[in-house]
Amino acid sequence: MRPSNRDAAALRPVTIERGVARYAEGSCLVKFGNTHVLCAASLEDRPPPWLRGQGRGWVTAEYAMLPRATATRTKRESASGRPSGRTHEIQRLIGRSLRAVVDLQAMGERQVVVDCDVIQADGGTRTAAITGAWVALHDCLAWMHHRSMIKHMPVRDHVAAVSCGIVKGEAVLDLDYAEDSSAETDANFVLTGQGGLVEVQATAENAPFTEAQLGSMLALARAGIADLVALQKDAVARKP
Amino acid sequence: MRPSNRDAAALRPVTIERGVARYAEGSCLVKFGNTHVLCAASLEDRPPPWLRGQGRGWVTAEYAMLPRATATRTKRESASGRPSGRTHEIQRLIGRSLRAVVDLQAMGERQVVVDCDVIQADGGTRTAAITGAWVALHDCLAWMHHRSMIKHMPVRDHVAAVSCGIVKGEAVLDLDYAEDSSAETDANFVLTGQGGLVEVQATAENAPFTEAQLGSMLALARAGIADLVALQKDAVARKP
Amino acid sequence: MRPSNRDAAALRPVTIERGVARYAEGSCLVKFGNTHVLCAASLEDRPPPWLRGQGRGWVTAEYAMLPRATATRTKRESASGRPSGRTHEIQRLIGRSLRAVVDLQAMGERQVVVDCDVIQADGGTRTAAITGAWVALHDCLAWMHHRSMIKHMPVRDHVAAVSCGIVKGEAVLDLDYAEDSSAETDANFVLTGQGGLVEVQATAENAPFTEAQLGSMLALARAGIADLVALQKDAVARKP
Amino acid sequence: MRPSNRDAAALRPVTIERGVARYAEGSCLVKFGNTHVLCAASLEDRPPPWLRGQGRGWVTAEYAMLPRATATRTKRESASGRPSGRTHEIQRLIGRSLRAVVDLQAMGERQVVVDCDVIQADGGTRTAAITGAWVALHDCLAWMHHRSMIKHMPVRDHVAAVSCGIVKGEAVLDLDYAEDSSAETDANFVLTGQGGLVEVQATAENAPFTEAQLGSMLALARAGIADLVALQKDAVARKP
Amino acid sequence: MRPSNRDAAALRPVTIERGVARYAEGSCLVKFGNTHVLCAASLEDRPPPWLRGQGRGWVTAEYAMLPRATATRTKRESASGRPSGRTHEIQRLIGRSLRAVVDLQAMGERQVVVDCDVIQADGGTRTAAITGAWVALHDCLAWMHHRSMIKHMPVRDHVAAVSCGIVKGEAVLDLDYAEDSSAETDANFVLTGQGGLVEVQATAENAPFTEAQLGSMLALARAGIADLVALQKDAVARKP
Amino acid sequence: MRPSNRDAAALRPVTIERGVARYAEGSCLVKFGNTHVLCAASLEDRPPPWLRGQGRGWVTAEYAMLPRATATRTKRESASGRPSGRTHEIQRLIGRSLRAVVDLQAMGERQVVVDCDVIQADGGTRTAAITGAWVALHDCLAWMHHRSMIKHMPVRDHVAAVSCGIVKGEAVLDLDYAEDSSAETDANFVLTGQGGLVEVQATAENAPFTEAQLGSMLALARAGIADLVALQKDAVARKP
Repeated sequence: MRPSNRDAAALRPVTIERGVARYAEGSCLVKFGNTHVLCAASLEDRPPPWLRGQGRGWVTAEYAMLPRATATRTKRESASGRPSGRTHEIQRLIGRSLRAVVDLQAMGERQVVVDCDVIQADGGTRTAAITGAWVALHDCLAWMHHRSMIKHMPVRDHVAAVSCGIVKGEAVLDLDYAEDSSAETDANFVLTGQGGLVEVQATAENAPFTEAQLGSMLALARAGIADLVALQKDAVARKP
Repeated sequence: MRPSNRDAAALRPVTIERGVARYAEGSCLVKFGNTHVLCAASLEDRPPPWLRGQGRGWVTAEYAMLPRATATRTKRESASGRPSGRTHEIQRLIGRSLRAVVDLQAMGERQVVVDCDVIQADGGTRTAAITGAWVALHDCLAWMHHRSMIKHMPVRDHVAAVSCGIVKGEAVLDLDYAEDSSAETDANFVLTGQGGLVEVQATAENAPFTEAQLGSMLALARAGIADLVALQKDAVARKP
Repeated sequence: MRPSNRDAAALRPVTIERGVARYAEGSCLVKFGNTHVLCAASLEDRPPPWLRGQGRGWVTAEYAMLPRATATRTKRESASGRPSGRTHEIQRLIGRSLRAVVDLQAMGERQVVVDCDVIQADGGTRTAAITGAWVALHDCLAWMHHRSMIKHMPVRDHVAAVSCGIVKGEAVLDLDYAEDSSAETDANFVLTGQGGLVEVQATAENAPFTEAQLGSMLALARAGIADLVALQKDAVARKP
Repeated sequence: MRPSNRDAAALRPVTIERGVARYAEGSCLVKFGNTHVLCAASLEDRPPPWLRGQGRGWVTAEYAMLPRATATRTKRESASGRPSGRTHEIQRLIGRSLRAVVDLQAMGERQVVVDCDVIQADGGTRTAAITGAWVALHDCLAWMHHRSMIKHMPVRDHVAAVSCGIVKGEAVLDLDYAEDSSAETDANFVLTGQGGLVEVQATAENAPFTEAQLGSMLALARAGIADLVALQKDAVARKP
Repeated sequence: MRPSNRDAAALRPVTIERGVARYAEGSCLVKFGNTHVLCAASLEDRPPPWLRGQGRGWVTAEYAMLPRATATRTKRESASGRPSGRTHEIQRLIGRSLRAVVDLQAMGERQVVVDCDVIQADGGTRTAAITGAWVALHDCLAWMHHRSMIKHMPVRDHVAAVSCGIVKGEAVLDLDYAEDSSAETDANFVLTGQGGLVEVQATAENAPFTEAQLGSMLALARAGIADLVALQKDAVARKP
Repeated sequence: MRPSNRDAAALRPVTIERGVARYAEGSCLVKFGNTHVLCAASLEDRPPPWLRGQGRGWVTAEYAMLPRATATRTKRESASGRPSGRTHEIQRLIGRSLRAVVDLQAMGERQVVVDCDVIQADGGTRTAAITGAWVALHDCLAWMHHRSMIKHMPVRDHVAAVSCGIVKGEAVLDLDYAEDSSAETDANFVLTGQGGLVEVQATAENAPFTEAQLGSMLALARAGIADLVALQKDAVARKP
């Protein structure tokens, strides 16, 4: 039995609340249990400098945690003068995941920045961030479409993410912080709505893992992400 | 008539919701209209280095805005590598205001850091932050008291803050962003529950102001802060 | 009796020596007792980037202390890699104060930077800096006028500043460092030559202060600043 | 046919030259074709601060590229003031991979830092770095063992790494830069000598990939890494 | 004839005014023509960390220019976040020059920091700084001696510096900025009171120079430094 | 007898291997005994910003050490966030030395950056770097000439460098690290192929030195540099 009394294949309660950031073109507050991430998409009228003049747009992401999102206070990255390696790694992952399902050509020479700010952290912040960022991005692109800035919605598919782990030799889905700390292997999966793989990251924390264990984790992730995509569909179907 | 249809002496709707940060020793979400600030107090078991061995505690604050708290996205301070002058100015003000009503001796050799993160910004973020920070600090100290870490509550009085301005020659209370942008004079007042002045900051944005105008603004602030203190009392009287 | 044997309403001996920086378009060395500040105004032929193309000019200030201006040596800010919060706060104050009396439109698309470097510090460095910066700025604008770069002098009025404090319950003018350290309340006032208020900043260092005390301090400041403005007039009337 | 005329399952020519850094406790120059990485292991007599007093050691890695390792010059990270996100990501990966096969308890309270400096870069620098770093680390631990600083060699197994990709729909092994730039999917695999998985990272660069493709890449990697481990065994069997 | 109408072997008018920094243990304002440097020596009761416990003291220097010391304003190094390479080079030179004539053993475990701040710059700031720094250091050590902190004065000799150059093929002494800009070779010499060489730095700005030219410059420097040492002797012989 | 059994006037074994950096326009690995420096010249199609539009080119250099080039590991400068003062000093020296023999006009509006990365350090890294950098620069300019980007080779002469020192009162050539640490005086000489002086830097480490000693060191340097220039000539005469 898992510490949270969940089944090996069970997600935590997940909710997606749209339109929480009054000034953003698209936004949502996504909750995976006690992990809460505020995702806000901002439209900028120019792509990044290295892309100018190529007729294409860009989607990028930034990620941060409030200092007291965690059990003990974490120092602000503005105080230490630079985002940490972990922050860089996560925000690059979010950006790549979003771009995998967006038609950058169709966006025109513009950029959308999706800010993922972790209000509360109980494990799985990057997977919650990706899942919520897709909704914020969708709403930002819909905002542009509504104003005829683009001819059609440049979103080709959903994208969502979930963590898995090997705990006491068994694969489990969507770890919270307590479970994550004791997992033998840690993995994050990013899949599209149609089940294509966008990113697989699996790390042995202690002993190496086997190909069979990788397969078990991927099977759990596939099912979990199908549920997350259904929740995204529900969310964007509602009036904001 | 003000853009918000408020009376010159009227606050925006103000609410204070306690206990919003699951892991913090004290926290609240304070709203002054569309300005929303999450205040989280963290207990640290050591005072800052320069205070060690003196038997006293310390209270300090940090302040930041989420990038899309504002109408147009603001760059993260972790990206530019340093908190701005404005950030420094505000977090020093919040810290001073709190320390004015705390018995640092009675805290023992400990520090409380109050993080004030602006989730949404529509003017008056520093005054909302001070007003909410007092509640978060109060709850953190109550948490310590409940665990017998301190003999009595080291809070001597309430402290709260509000902005005033001179708009078209007339003094008005609690400016939102639109009003703030067009004010001839901008002022912030920090007062205690008993009406003592803790901080007065008044700045001519355009033409100089008069002593009479300073007096009018202070009178508005005094009444507004009395209302804010009443809301703080209500908030801490409730079960969290 | 004050430590300096001064009357509550007495300024320290104040002198303003113009033309001390050979290469600057305007400069002065201002002394408030043992506080000495070198103010040098530099004309730059372009306004800051965010103001370009608007037909207006800009006035800004920078502030720093020599490491051994103070009783114990202070670390250089270039070594710590960034100006402190206090430095930012002061240089923003100086800039705002100067801009309050300058017709930016009449300056054309140019910028004047006034560097205020504290050679020796005995309290009141920011108020001495504002008082001297006005003279340096005046001479820089006169330099431009003399070369027909501008049609008329874009200075609308004088601006000067002085500190006040509540010491042992009584209001006193122009505190030196020893008095400042023991003051219950600390205040800085910036006024124009005609007596308009440009900036009021009052901070309780210990116990809160009263509205009456704020009024007493403002009265002292008003008289002190009238004297400082007279000294500015004398200074700019002399041949440099 | 691949641009390099290699078979889909063929590594580039790989060599490992030990003892190249005269002052380091362990070192090697590893070449994967035109990718050359200098790995140097340094023994430090104290673990990192956060591990002190726990009786365990630590292994970490740093990674950098010479500015002209690449086809066009890359700016030095010391000039931009901070290691990039990519650098952080890679050095964290190298460190985790090495720790997966080291008995940190048996090392005592010491740290080994393995510097991986890319002298020439033609794709796969991180996988070459991991493969070489194991040899440098091995020699550093052997140096300690020879001096009786540790009772037995704390290396539990080999660890090596290789990249794979999906190019034109087919899985290929050990991509050079030209191939890497055109791959639809990019993956890095880190395995132990006994074939356990330590790290799997697969990223869709364009279209998503399938579970079958992930399987094909893993099969290629498993065979390639077996060859790399054989080369490591040869290298450490020789007199340095 | 030189632009300044000076003879090839003539120094600019040099003055040394002691005791200009009220709070420093030793100080002087040194002027080489229009180059003015404020030198202030600060006693610190601990040597730098890497020297602790060795029973010896240390002398170091810092160097900076006020932004408007120069004909056009220079950006503050605190704004760019780091001292420039030129600044590092100069302050290391000043420190080495002073240490060449001080008995560090006799100082005890203390440090003297000599701040050399250029108030006005017309060429030769580093040589003026060394010449003045010796006086400030002398007075700081005399201050310590007077308080019986040290048994005898730990100054073994004078040290002073001057620049030379090759202008139109001829060696000249103590270049001002205009001459320095057009010199074919630039050199700085640091000598002791007894004529020993402490530092020779000669740089071809355009065409290489000859050994004979190096000899001519050294001869001029030797005579000029003898004069500077005489001025140092006069200065320290006076009551401060 | 010297620790290395060398004669006072003997260089260490010196070798220059060209073409070691596959992607650079010019490169070499230069060895002065156990000091090994990799020099790589990169052509950039634009001069630095401050030189644009003047029809001239520029040559600059960067210098760094691998962390374990030295007997004990040195922290990376990218981790400390800035190149040290020593690094700045050395790379400025290399750049000046190269520019002394290059016709910048003939280069056109282009820049060559020569990266000097110390692979192994046993004293004299800056002199080895200058000697090797000339070869890398030569080959880069030959590469340009071969492609008709320039009409003739803009190299006017050779430039090379060597260190000298006073050890136990006697002048010696080309010090290794052990000798350098105990030298009473340390000097670096940069000369052209025709024997012109480009840079002389001599520093008393302990007691001052005499003019005669400076002369003895220069004589040794002159002979040593003649040998280095002969090695450069051999190197560039060979097919790369």
